[in-house]
Amino acid sequence: MKIALICSGSELLNGKLNTNAAYIGSRIFDIGLHLTSVINVGDRKEDLERIFNSAFKNCDIVISTGGLGPTFDDITVETAAQCLALEIYKNENVLNSIKNYFEKRKLLTFTKNNEKQANIIKGAKVLVNNYGTAPGQMLHFEFKDVQKQVRKTLFLLPGPPKEMKPMFEENVVSFLKCYSSKITKSMGIKVFGLAESEVEQMIMPVIKDSSFGDNNSIEFGIIASNSVIEVKFSVSGDDELLTDKKLLELKFSFENILKENIFGYGNETLASVVGKLLTTAKKTISFAESCTGGLISSALTDVPGSSLYFKNSIISYSNFAKIKILGVKEGTILNTGAVSEETAKEMAVGVLKLSESDYALSATGIAGPSGGTKEKPIGLVCIAFADKKKCEAFKFNFTGTRDNIRERTVVTALDIIRRRILFSRLKNTDK
Amino acid sequence: MKIALICSGSELLNGKLNTNAAYIGSRIFDIGLHLTSVINVGDRKEDLERIFNSAFKNCDIVISTGGLGPTFDDITVETAAQCLALEIYKNENVLNSIKNYFEKRKLLTFTKNNEKQANIIKGAKVLVNNYGTAPGQMLHFEFKDVQKQVRKTLFLLPGPPKEMKPMFEENVVSFLKCYSSKITKSMGIKVFGLAESEVEQMIMPVIKDSSFGDNNSIEFGIIASNSVIEVKFSVSGDDELLTDKKLLELKFSFENILKENIFGYGNETLASVVGKLLTTAKKTISFAESCTGGLISSALTDVPGSSLYFKNSIISYSNFAKIKILGVKEGTILNTGAVSEETAKEMAVGVLKLSESDYALSATGIAGPSGGTKEKPIGLVCIAFADKKKCEAFKFNFTGTRDNIRERTVVTALDIIRRRILFSRLKNTDK
Repeated sequence: MKIALICSGSELLNGKLNTNAAYIGSRIFDIGLHLTSVINVGDRKEDLERIFNSAFKNCDIVISTGGLGPTFDDITVETAAQCLALEIYKNENVLNSIKNYFEKRKLLTFTKNNEKQANIIKGAKVLVNNYGTAPGQMLHFEFKDVQKQVRKTLFLLPGPPKEMKPMFEENVVSFLKCYSSKITKSMGIKVFGLAESEVEQMIMPVIKDSSFGDNNSIEFGIIASNSVIEVKFSVSGDDELLTDKKLLELKFSFENILKENIFGYGNETLASVVGKLLTTAKKTISFAESCTGGLISSALTDVPGSSLYFKNSIISYSNFAKIKILGVKEGTILNTGAVSEETAKEMAVGVLKLSESDYALSATGIAGPSGGTKEKPIGLVCIAFADKKKCEAFKFNFTGTRDNIRERTVVTALDIIRRRILFSRLKNTDK
Repeated sequence: MKIALICSGSELLNGKLNTNAAYIGSRIFDIGLHLTSVINVGDRKEDLERIFNSAFKNCDIVISTGGLGPTFDDITVETAAQCLALEIYKNENVLNSIKNYFEKRKLLTFTKNNEKQANIIKGAKVLVNNYGTAPGQMLHFEFKDVQKQVRKTLFLLPGPPKEMKPMFEENVVSFLKCYSSKITKSMGIKVFGLAESEVEQMIMPVIKDSSFGDNNSIEFGIIASNSVIEVKFSVSGDDELLTDKKLLELKFSFENILKENIFGYGNETLASVVGKLLTTAKKTISFAESCTGGLISSALTDVPGSSLYFKNSIISYSNFAKIKILGVKEGTILNTGAVSEETAKEMAVGVLKLSESDYALSATGIAGPSGGTKEKPIGLVCIAFADKKKCEAFKFNFTGTRDNIRERTVVTALDIIRRRILFSRLKNTDK
């Protein structure tokens, strides 16, 4: 089955990231399907027309986002209708609900322009928008191919993510699930500590050997983002039990290969996993950050409920703060420099004492773009991890831009915590 | 002129953000041109073929990224050649330089697969890749339209951003600049403190009234991201002086309308602008962060050279840290709560003293998803700003997800610093 996603909005051609496409692509993969293409297009009618026509011809399902607003450059409804030679009409129910929406919020005045948002393609089902004025539309239509009539489906969804997402979940997801008539189960395995190409090479034999009967299918995907690799796979079949079994089989195969480099599944992040580990272990943590400037702490506090295990951090950018607040010895900084394993250790021990936490982690490094020397080049980062008994430091040479180096430090730091907690736990269990 | 961007890679259909499209779109806008469409496509040959054919037919310039790698699913070169009915050949120079690249790095072994990367379309110019093995290609070709032959251009660029960007800048940008034969100047004005729709409404009269002669053109765009609005515009004309004048005219018009809500231009961010203001004023700053968990500090230290003005931060997530490290009175937290203007003020004053900085800012709030009450709902955020003479607190009710609330707090905090510094400076100048 071919699914085209068409995203309208000239900002998507001028530098704005298309987050809708990433969201929809990821959710469709979860259902065991694939987007065939994503097309960003502006508000020129001839371009949108050409793109709609091509999608109607080549794909079975066409999902459109954006262009449902009240202004003159919102042309999605009229263009889609024109391409399909269908009429549009003013839907009174929709008109009333838009008016209600305005009254209830008392914020804006209903203008003549807004009436346009009640334009519905003849035969389309109205999809209610609880988070904005533009309703969505779902239309089944017959497309005349060279040889035969084909039944196809068009979804018109609004552009703002907070309006699009619930409408997509409620209408498109359930439709696609019915459409496929298969039972689909999907999973994502999150990996840290291996390069994308390494992961690819390691799991390729499993992918090549995988099969699931004639009528069933398996899809694989690898997505790398900021050193975190996600191995995604979905299994579609007729029998739920067999589908579950195949999914687990694949999961076990990947786990066998990727081992302790796997840190989580699905929506889990390194931060959420570390949070869970700390919660389970009933341990608290604090940070002393230099080059990361608060990024490690903000990653961890990104997780709801982090106040359970996160006590506080000191962002000791200046030597003054390292010495005065964290108690790093002046001699250590003079002798080994602010970026050294020794300084990192004293920072970690310092914040551990100050915060009265169970664990502490520190990071100090040279993120660039200047400040590097031959002995201490840009990208040199020292990370120390302390508990009440010992403190250990690690040295890294990261590459890339200032952003790359800082982000790499964050995920590496979180992974050190993860491995430390898991490792000591494993050892305890061994005894 | 019509420009199509085709981005190959199945990960772009499964949930990966297309950052290449955002980068290229933004840079092409700077030149005074517009992408006509962006198409993400996977590694199925029939899909890529159809998309190439349509782009060759409908556009003057086709830019492709990705699919130049050594593996079996890298099919960009052969598919493009096939669509144009051109041959490919093994380029010996390219082959040698790929072999050299491998030898120099001693990291990987050259395999038979890598030879594929030396496949060049007949007639194409090889674009050197200094950051990877896949060379790019530029090809001028004749396209037979219904009535006449049209000369068009195809660029094949690698997918990894660090390889794509320099190749794009060096080859595509200069080509497009020549191609347009116009002098183009562009500018982006960055705004904070107004909603996207407000900005649009305010500047619409300028956009509608703007004209620049018959042979010249003006393009406008508005991009909103995380409460920051960018008003982008570019002016293309034959005469450099007149083009510059028109650009300045527009700049002044927008400045007149948007006034002190403008915080910067072009690549400037709220953090970089605050950094510049602090540097110029020779002032230092420190932060006491609670709900933002380090995000304000990490935003400011994202700017190279921030060690000049950023001293340190205390991320006082726990009341323990607020009291013990920052010296917030236990009674204040008991009487007014951890999220209150009073606590925010004591946090700011506390970190100001501890850090011996000129300014201090604190943020404490309820980011959710739980923890809200009727009196103190999710989204309530208190921010305080202190200098050595006084301390002032501000109260906000933000909406949205935990992420939204935290990010909104960060930009609001940075904007408070900006307006504080500018305001006191203005007052000094007045006297």
